[in-house]
Amino acid sequence: MNIDLSATWQEASTVTLRGHAAVVIDVLRATSTIVTAIQSGAREVIPVETPEDARLAAQEPRADRVVLGGERGGLKIEGFDFGNSPYEYTPRSVGGRTVIMTTTNGTRAFAAARGANITVAAALLNVGSVADFLLREGRDVVIICAGTEGRVSLDDLYCAGALIERILTPGADWVLNDGARLAVHWYGTNTGTSVDVLASCAHGRKLAELGFHRDVEYCSRVDTVMEVPVLRGRSLVSR
Amino acid sequence: MNIDLSATWQEASTVTLRGHAAVVIDVLRATSTIVTAIQSGAREVIPVETPEDARLAAQEPRADRVVLGGERGGLKIEGFDFGNSPYEYTPRSVGGRTVIMTTTNGTRAFAAARGANITVAAALLNVGSVADFLLREGRDVVIICAGTEGRVSLDDLYCAGALIERILTPGADWVLNDGARLAVHWYGTNTGTSVDVLASCAHGRKLAELGFHRDVEYCSRVDTVMEVPVLRGRSLVSR
Repeated sequence: MNIDLSATWQEASTVTLRGHAAVVIDVLRATSTIVTAIQSGAREVIPVETPEDARLAAQEPRADRVVLGGERGGLKIEGFDFGNSPYEYTPRSVGGRTVIMTTTNGTRAFAAARGANITVAAALLNVGSVADFLLREGRDVVIICAGTEGRVSLDDLYCAGALIERILTPGADWVLNDGARLAVHWYGTNTGTSVDVLASCAHGRKLAELGFHRDVEYCSRVDTVMEVPVLRGRSLVSR
Repeated sequence: MNIDLSATWQEASTVTLRGHAAVVIDVLRATSTIVTAIQSGAREVIPVETPEDARLAAQEPRADRVVLGGERGGLKIEGFDFGNSPYEYTPRSVGGRTVIMTTTNGTRAFAAARGANITVAAALLNVGSVADFLLREGRDVVIICAGTEGRVSLDDLYCAGALIERILTPGADWVLNDGARLAVHWYGTNTGTSVDVLASCAHGRKLAELGFHRDVEYCSRVDTVMEVPVLRGRSLVSR
């Protein structure tokens, strides 16, 4: 079995997806927020690439049950209901609703996963559950880290390493590409330091400057959520 | 002072180069071969993007002193004088000559460095000399790892980490991006294992399959060459 990791969604452009299980990771903050929204009872989260796509999708029939979420430059988009903070996605705000979401890096990574047989959203919050899901699925795995504006991001790589370490069960014969080996090494030599890794990476420092310290701390929690959001059509839903 | 690392030349597309010193790294094998060619007394190495560019450049006046080198798929290009093995670039074969070179990843990384105030070629062979050169230069540093067909490559990242560790002199206040931090970590937790790193990375294994074991071993040597090839116009020349 193979594990292929792309450190940015741009890097994934030439990756074979057919027949594979794809995992999208954007720890700060898109996939952490998506996992939280599904845990809070959102009916579905629809990742779209642009604010305009989000507004168009919101005009469709069941619009009374739709909320718009996401960010540009880390901040809520004008006219949207919510930004990209997981704390905004509570049972009260999104329970039973459709969340249409667009973010700078994360929602584009889902577009890069098109063609995979199954696609899931992973964050540190649900990394153990995603590993269990992938082991049951039994397919070759493609991990697409969102990265930050085209650059390698240490938070995503750390989460990817945590995921791969949980997949690499003794006895199984896994083949890792260079990116996957790097993620395992980065995580394995920094295990238990998720708070420090997220606070010190470039994106974590930027979020702290914007006042989102609490989000960074929240996103560094490991295995607090059992949900594995799975893409069905264009929607991420509870598995 | 800043050190910004791109793990692939594609990642460098949005990086600020003006005012910076750029370092291009393609350990397997372009920059190792370029460093070797300059050490062997080549008058200049001209990196070009395509075999067609190379053939056109070779038609210019001083063509009697010109040799064509490079690879596609790891192998010598039809009609070229040499492939991409450093062992081909001896004083006898390239001394006093112009080498026009095109490779899959490495020579494109030089194109990605366009706009930097100064650009140098680094490999493990000359990593200490490049570090000394950059410290004297005193500019912010942009490191462009070639990568392998758009993917992160562990050999280049290892060399970049070795370079950065030599630059980070105590007392100086360097700011590293996430990629540069990752390279320092990868090198720092694998110091002294360059042969293993190069032999086990995806590109090293592919080269071994093609019969280039000896090249992989040669490229893993550290600090055996004093030359720092510097880009002047379109030519890499001895500093």
